[in-house]
Amino acid sequence: MKTYIKHNPWQIIEDTFRPEHNEFSESIFAIGNGRMGQRANFEEYFSGKSLQGSYLAGIYYPDKTRVGWWKNGYPEYFAKVINSFNWIGLDIAINGQRLDLAQVTVLSFERRLDMQRGVLQRSFVVRMHDGVEVKVEASRMYHLFASETASLQYQVQALTADVTIELTSFLDAEVVNRDSNYDEKFWEPLEQGQQGQNLFVSSRTKKTGFEVCAELETRVTGTDGVIEAGEIVSKDGYMAQRYTATVAKSHTLCVEKRVAIITSENHVAEKLRTVATGRLTDLRAFHFDQLKEKQAKAWQAIWDESDIEIFGDVAAQQAIRYNIFQLNQTYTGEDARLNIGPKGFTGEKYGGVTYWDTEAYCIPFYLATQTPEIARNLLLYRYQQLDKAIENAGKLGFSNGAALFPMVTINGEECHNEWEITFEEIHRNGAIAFAIYNYVRYTGDNDYIWSHGLDVLIAISRFWAQRVNWSTDKEQYVMLGVTGPNEYENNVNNNWYTNRIASWCLDYTLTCLRNCEKSRAEIFTALLARLKLTADEQNHWQHIIDKLYFPYDEKRKIFLQQDGFLDKELIPVQELDPSQRPINQKWSWDRILRSCYIKQADVLQGFYFLEEHFDEETLDRHFEFYEPLTVHESSLSPCVHAILAAKLGKTAKAYEFYLRTSRLDLDDYNNDTEDGLHITSMAGTWMTIVEGFAGMRVKDGRLYLNPMLPPEWKGYKFRILFRGATLLIAVYADFYTIENVSDTPAHIQTAAEVFVLAGHGTKQISQVR
Amino acid sequence: MKTYIKHNPWQIIEDTFRPEHNEFSESIFAIGNGRMGQRANFEEYFSGKSLQGSYLAGIYYPDKTRVGWWKNGYPEYFAKVINSFNWIGLDIAINGQRLDLAQVTVLSFERRLDMQRGVLQRSFVVRMHDGVEVKVEASRMYHLFASETASLQYQVQALTADVTIELTSFLDAEVVNRDSNYDEKFWEPLEQGQQGQNLFVSSRTKKTGFEVCAELETRVTGTDGVIEAGEIVSKDGYMAQRYTATVAKSHTLCVEKRVAIITSENHVAEKLRTVATGRLTDLRAFHFDQLKEKQAKAWQAIWDESDIEIFGDVAAQQAIRYNIFQLNQTYTGEDARLNIGPKGFTGEKYGGVTYWDTEAYCIPFYLATQTPEIARNLLLYRYQQLDKAIENAGKLGFSNGAALFPMVTINGEECHNEWEITFEEIHRNGAIAFAIYNYVRYTGDNDYIWSHGLDVLIAISRFWAQRVNWSTDKEQYVMLGVTGPNEYENNVNNNWYTNRIASWCLDYTLTCLRNCEKSRAEIFTALLARLKLTADEQNHWQHIIDKLYFPYDEKRKIFLQQDGFLDKELIPVQELDPSQRPINQKWSWDRILRSCYIKQADVLQGFYFLEEHFDEETLDRHFEFYEPLTVHESSLSPCVHAILAAKLGKTAKAYEFYLRTSRLDLDDYNNDTEDGLHITSMAGTWMTIVEGFAGMRVKDGRLYLNPMLPPEWKGYKFRILFRGATLLIAVYADFYTIENVSDTPAHIQTAAEVFVLAGHGTKQISQVR
Repeated sequence: MKTYIKHNPWQIIEDTFRPEHNEFSESIFAIGNGRMGQRANFEEYFSGKSLQGSYLAGIYYPDKTRVGWWKNGYPEYFAKVINSFNWIGLDIAINGQRLDLAQVTVLSFERRLDMQRGVLQRSFVVRMHDGVEVKVEASRMYHLFASETASLQYQVQALTADVTIELTSFLDAEVVNRDSNYDEKFWEPLEQGQQGQNLFVSSRTKKTGFEVCAELETRVTGTDGVIEAGEIVSKDGYMAQRYTATVAKSHTLCVEKRVAIITSENHVAEKLRTVATGRLTDLRAFHFDQLKEKQAKAWQAIWDESDIEIFGDVAAQQAIRYNIFQLNQTYTGEDARLNIGPKGFTGEKYGGVTYWDTEAYCIPFYLATQTPEIARNLLLYRYQQLDKAIENAGKLGFSNGAALFPMVTINGEECHNEWEITFEEIHRNGAIAFAIYNYVRYTGDNDYIWSHGLDVLIAISRFWAQRVNWSTDKEQYVMLGVTGPNEYENNVNNNWYTNRIASWCLDYTLTCLRNCEKSRAEIFTALLARLKLTADEQNHWQHIIDKLYFPYDEKRKIFLQQDGFLDKELIPVQELDPSQRPINQKWSWDRILRSCYIKQADVLQGFYFLEEHFDEETLDRHFEFYEPLTVHESSLSPCVHAILAAKLGKTAKAYEFYLRTSRLDLDDYNNDTEDGLHITSMAGTWMTIVEGFAGMRVKDGRLYLNPMLPPEWKGYKFRILFRGATLLIAVYADFYTIENVSDTPAHIQTAAEVFVLAGHGTKQISQVR
Repeated sequence: MKTYIKHNPWQIIEDTFRPEHNEFSESIFAIGNGRMGQRANFEEYFSGKSLQGSYLAGIYYPDKTRVGWWKNGYPEYFAKVINSFNWIGLDIAINGQRLDLAQVTVLSFERRLDMQRGVLQRSFVVRMHDGVEVKVEASRMYHLFASETASLQYQVQALTADVTIELTSFLDAEVVNRDSNYDEKFWEPLEQGQQGQNLFVSSRTKKTGFEVCAELETRVTGTDGVIEAGEIVSKDGYMAQRYTATVAKSHTLCVEKRVAIITSENHVAEKLRTVATGRLTDLRAFHFDQLKEKQAKAWQAIWDESDIEIFGDVAAQQAIRYNIFQLNQTYTGEDARLNIGPKGFTGEKYGGVTYWDTEAYCIPFYLATQTPEIARNLLLYRYQQLDKAIENAGKLGFSNGAALFPMVTINGEECHNEWEITFEEIHRNGAIAFAIYNYVRYTGDNDYIWSHGLDVLIAISRFWAQRVNWSTDKEQYVMLGVTGPNEYENNVNNNWYTNRIASWCLDYTLTCLRNCEKSRAEIFTALLARLKLTADEQNHWQHIIDKLYFPYDEKRKIFLQQDGFLDKELIPVQELDPSQRPINQKWSWDRILRSCYIKQADVLQGFYFLEEHFDEETLDRHFEFYEPLTVHESSLSPCVHAILAAKLGKTAKAYEFYLRTSRLDLDDYNNDTEDGLHITSMAGTWMTIVEGFAGMRVKDGRLYLNPMLPPEWKGYKFRILFRGATLLIAVYADFYTIENVSDTPAHIQTAAEVFVLAGHGTKQISQVR
């Protein structure tokens, strides 16, 4: 845990140089624009602790699988979003001494991330070995308004004497991943040189063959105007320009770097250089301050749609904005080939690829804060990978078009290699089906079901139908050998959540088929023919729904997490010796597995997804049974519990869970933020406020609200996009207001009434829970 | 499968050069003497397929663990018996052309392993590029009579013309393991040079610091007598002597090499060179032929004790001798720090360390064919590692002196790193306790229990007592999260075998304690005090015995392999599509796990160990239920099934299983013999004949026999050492004889009677099943 980030509603501020925590800060201050992003590495050379990291969305390397013991069916590789070109580099010597914050005396230091405007700023004053003091002010942006470009400004002021500055501005494609299974280099250089006054470097990824061309423009200005580059340095995959300047006392040398990074993912390979040159030409008319204005404007548009204001609690305010900011830096939704890596562009861990987090935690955020196309693109990502998911299921022995979507993927192929997860954590199929339902429920876009959804739903249903088997012993269908959302149980039989979501998938698919038959008979007929889906097969699905076994305890009236759960010793977490926690760092794996302790919501995850199937009393009974056994050692756990606690009126519990999720990274709760941020759980933080405290749901095509106010807050305010309307919802202690800030009328339901809020209308409601 | 090894009662013969299968042959023709051993690599340079491998018992390297995903509790390293000094090397040029069987024309080739005399022979005729033909005859031995030495003779005859031979005889310590997790070198050279006419090299293993010194004597004799060495070559860890000779047509150049390899495991490090010199001096008086005589005599002593003769089936005869030969090459039992690696000295796979195979499969062989000290040393191996086993259990959260012996070890520390095995395949503790029982039952050496056994038994009982937990749901004790002997089930609850062996351990420990109290009260009192073992703790064990849960099917009257077994689809193996087998190469791991298919005896393993607890009808019911579901994909499976089938009078089935186990390596059933031999399952082959066909048991301190004859054989004959007596048992179609070839009377029981067979007495019994 670290608590030195200053509380501020719009900015993230670090005001002291802490080289020992530099990798933590590099994660926290990371910036990006959905297309590319970067850890907050220094421009100048730094010999201290640092994880160099710049990443390009969709550019990956298939790193050969490393395991201790191979299991048949493991994938050949783990796809990694790889460390890419370092374009920020400035090697600086002042009076012949290298500027390296690990080697000089740092007199002051500040790092500041302006979330409102999308700018990373850094300023520091150092005393060099010869006693000369200089001040540096640096600003950096990944342009939201032109996503293939980025820029920085770096100003060096001579404070105490005239100085000579030698400066090398470079573009380096000879980068490596710290996380490489066999210490391989992932890039091979293609071409490099000068393009007018600019430098360019092209490289290709090995095996995957992605080509990337970066063009760099450096502009150095002294008191007497522009300083021309001297020597050009060219090495394998590395180009640099050298500058020498004399800066008089109190005067400033200003360096500006602009880069365009163009990939063969988005352009034909032959045109990369041309496009890069064009992108920089497009920016040429604008000063750095003008670029900053464009950036601020682009970010303002995002905040207008997705800001949440919290009154009376700056730490909470900062935290929720930080979560929203990072989500928007990671994924803008404009490209259906991209997805939301668990660490976004902020680190190498987990390979930056797609997990079920996207469907289970991120979809609601994008649904409510962006136009429907964004969430739709996330659905299309999976739709486009359906063939690969069918192939993947085939490797595990499934047939007839059954699909198992991968546990971890970037291009649709499975990357993970732990049998108990790769082969058994199959509930991910359920989340992918549920996301379709969630999208359609929120947007009302039924057409998506006919055009894309049913293909995915049928393939998933076929998987479930083959994955269960008939137990002659129970005379019911059972599902053996699975790992549920709670990964502290492996290879269990009849995980309730997995059985329940499987049954739901089958049921939803049949419902969609019936609706399709009713409303779009021609599509229905074509679909059955194309997918060879017979009435028999559908009847078999219904039979499974009717005869699927669910472990249940009659005495407690509790669905059991899995077969045999009650054989465990049920000792509440609070009776655990605190020195034994987190158990995943203190206990061997077998001890965790046979304990009753739950990593993250499992049965309760099912209650969250399928809440309309269970009354509050039943929910309360299950919450009271399972939550005390839950250690929340997944970053995805507290948010679901916060939402359910809020629903049940357990205000203190809900607020406690909000605290655990919202400042997870800012305060480094798990001591692992140095590896990168927990991007996907940030969407859970948003859900905690909107679905938890404000009780937002969609019911019968209406936006449903039933808010409460945590006693620690004076109020909170957020925006929701709902079926064309933009609603501003403000909750206070005694009342709440709904303001329709768009032209589109909104269909709304509260605890007391159902009404239509006309465009630009406002309604005040006194009933706060 | 490969069937080119010629059938011969005493020899293993390969009569054609098959370079594509050279690694298979290198395994098959491996030789050793319990202290060290070697794959059948060529003396001369060979550029074809070869796995260079020489090994020294007990000399290992802690190779840093390699896993995909780290689990808390994993060991830091995997201990590997490492590839050691190559002393056989002869680099030969004939008329300036290198002798390399991959490059010249091989006109004839034969490899022959004389099991009776313990000599590996090889002869071949080649035509060199210049048309000259030479014949080579090579013999090699790892001396059983002087276990730190080995010797070879290599004769080159000029067949078609006079030739000039340049010859380099070397000793090379710069060897590497093919199986190294991080491509590390395991050795560092210490010292090297000349010692009189001999060469020596000393090296030390990294991390473990074992020191090894080898001294090599080379003697080259031509037609005109001894040829002096010319140039000496010295490189890092490598010493060589060069010789040049002219050999007239039909004349022979004879090379002899003798080596002493001395390790700091057995001598003080400072003395290694002195000891090595002494060992070679001891051999100096003997010609190579005399060494061969000494070797033949030493092997004869072994055959006198442990040979099995089979009449009317040469393939079966060769196979059983091969199994006995390799077991004796691997482990002689003279050193309680050593154990029986699953591949012995024949390959790198599995690291050459100790598994539960030793207790479950090898102990009976050594008990019946060697003096009791040998089996006792195997027990002492574990006894000496008890502290480490207690430490190991501590890492998994156990306390109060509970011990979990490692799944894989060399020095008592756990080496394995698959959670489902390392942490959960805990039934190994049961086999270790059972081996104590088995040893005492066979030898009558009750003192071992008081002096060593109870310490181990109590520590194991403490483990079981903590590993079960009380299920308030069942109101019985349960054991959650284990992997049984059938590794095609992982992390199951209440594996019947594990529960049963745990219960047996507790019961046997209590019985031993009561016996100790009765017969050796002073030891009993001291033991309770030293181990702080209270009456309460013993009562608690009894409570577990009384209230332990066993999964059972009332309908079939079958103990279930684990909870939920009947939820599986029970489809017999014979209905499986043959293209789907072996399933461990065709199916993904999850599919194997949720299938009903059994890798090796599990419930039936319990019936084998604890046979007196179950009547034949019950055994038959379980055999008929489980065997049809068993795929026997472990080399340890067929032998147990053969023994049980023989007991049940299922003769054809028993013979079928004998075939599967006895020629497993010779005919390369599993296509993996190139990695090394399946040493521990060879003891199972022996058990198949002695316990299976001959029905040998120990009952009430008597040797019990109840033989049958497989209809494919005319008869068989084997020797048994039993409580000081040596018995020669011969079984024919209509009768069998027991001959006491020792002075000691033997207490014997047959199906019909109980009698004492006096020294040198013989008894013929007509009752063959």
